[in-house]
Amino acid sequence: MNALLKYDARADTVNSLLCVGLDTAISRLPAWAGERSAPQLSFNQRIIDLTAEYVAAFKFNMSFYEETGSSGLRQLAGSLDYLRSQHPNILTISDAKRADIGNSSAAYARAIFEELGFDAVTLSPYLGQDALQPFLDYGDKACIILCRTSNPGSAEFQNLEIAGVALWQHVAKAVSRAWNARGNCMLVAAATYPAELAQIRAIVGDMSLLVPGIGAQGGDIASVIGAGLNSRGKGLIINASRSIIFADDPADAAATLRDTINQFRPR
Amino acid sequence: MNALLKYDARADTVNSLLCVGLDTAISRLPAWAGERSAPQLSFNQRIIDLTAEYVAAFKFNMSFYEETGSSGLRQLAGSLDYLRSQHPNILTISDAKRADIGNSSAAYARAIFEELGFDAVTLSPYLGQDALQPFLDYGDKACIILCRTSNPGSAEFQNLEIAGVALWQHVAKAVSRAWNARGNCMLVAAATYPAELAQIRAIVGDMSLLVPGIGAQGGDIASVIGAGLNSRGKGLIINASRSIIFADDPADAAATLRDTINQFRPR
Repeated sequence: MNALLKYDARADTVNSLLCVGLDTAISRLPAWAGERSAPQLSFNQRIIDLTAEYVAAFKFNMSFYEETGSSGLRQLAGSLDYLRSQHPNILTISDAKRADIGNSSAAYARAIFEELGFDAVTLSPYLGQDALQPFLDYGDKACIILCRTSNPGSAEFQNLEIAGVALWQHVAKAVSRAWNARGNCMLVAAATYPAELAQIRAIVGDMSLLVPGIGAQGGDIASVIGAGLNSRGKGLIINASRSIIFADDPADAAATLRDTINQFRPR
Repeated sequence: MNALLKYDARADTVNSLLCVGLDTAISRLPAWAGERSAPQLSFNQRIIDLTAEYVAAFKFNMSFYEETGSSGLRQLAGSLDYLRSQHPNILTISDAKRADIGNSSAAYARAIFEELGFDAVTLSPYLGQDALQPFLDYGDKACIILCRTSNPGSAEFQNLEIAGVALWQHVAKAVSRAWNARGNCMLVAAATYPAELAQIRAIVGDMSLLVPGIGAQGGDIASVIGAGLNSRGKGLIINASRSIIFADDPADAAATLRDTINQFRPR
């Protein structure tokens, strides 16, 4: 199924715009997980079991699995297999921030969309559209392009102005007007910059936006919802990672965040 | 040893500025390699054996190892182990084009510099300096930032002008003036755009530049050398991948390219 439709359908089914980020850093795992043969997999299975009913997407930041080598990559694949077997309707995002050229981009796309079987991937725009075309050519998968990122120093290049138009605005325009020929593009728009999020929404119409920066990074939910919903009252994939997966009660943390988000959505 | 010094010392020892890119795409391997239990590793060992005496660096594009899953990652690690055991003085570059924020960048840095033990990594600048600081903090490793890339569409964002200064020039200035506090930064400057390569050299002084785009991509060697050498007659890491590793005679291809490069260098 088309990744965008999959997300929207799941968001309706569980009445949630929440994405839980499985940033399963080996150094932060609880003692019980450390005693298992596959600590990251065991931890992820528990988080999936506890939180799935409240979420529309799970996002896997690749760095935490690459950090643990080939074992980490097997645990990532195992986590995806488990998730798909239990909850095949939940969108899966590879937070990889990849970008390369030609045959290398094609190999990354096969790795993420075919070998691992993700529904979506995050991509960096600096190399331009032609470099990412091998990803964009997968019409049923979602390509989520970095636009305005959540880090404190994201303005260094992203806010440079070309004749009064910031670089992140150029990215939003290019992606929504040219790169999105197959209707499978999204953008990353950080919760920590709600004014820019509103401007991105104005540029891209109803395109879906992945919103990191809630939770541990301090983004404000009311501002995000106010700035970011599309004309159908959706169009946001609101991610929280550490504030959920390392909470004392991950299920309660996910349910509470889902409900808090919904408070600000039109009924 | 500091990665920059390691490269310069090796370049002097073998009188070569050549980097061979082990873009070991599983779909392009010869039949004999396909019959081995670890095809990418066996192929890499052969290429290393045949070409090492002519090269100052080997570059591993991560996509081709991620494409083959956890097996690929083991074969990448095995290739690095073999290379270090046979030729510990050759610079090893992870062509990963990574970028993420905070704790995710730190995890990528540990994966590439510690788990795999690479001397250098390629990084994408779009997120800004603070995002990449965990990489930059490894003073003995080299951080090679994308500046002007070799693909046909690289101008889409890289050539946007901010008050007359192209984005790639902003990147070159920021990296050489601010990001390089530990003296461990380099830039990617493509062989396919020699005029821009000359301008990058003018901005960054003697900083080393990784130059892709020779060989299969068509960059001209005389132009690259004329535009890119630093004041010490080095400062270039000239990469060729497919044109060497898939040549009928990889040793001859590497030796010939090394010698062609040297024809244009001052004696």
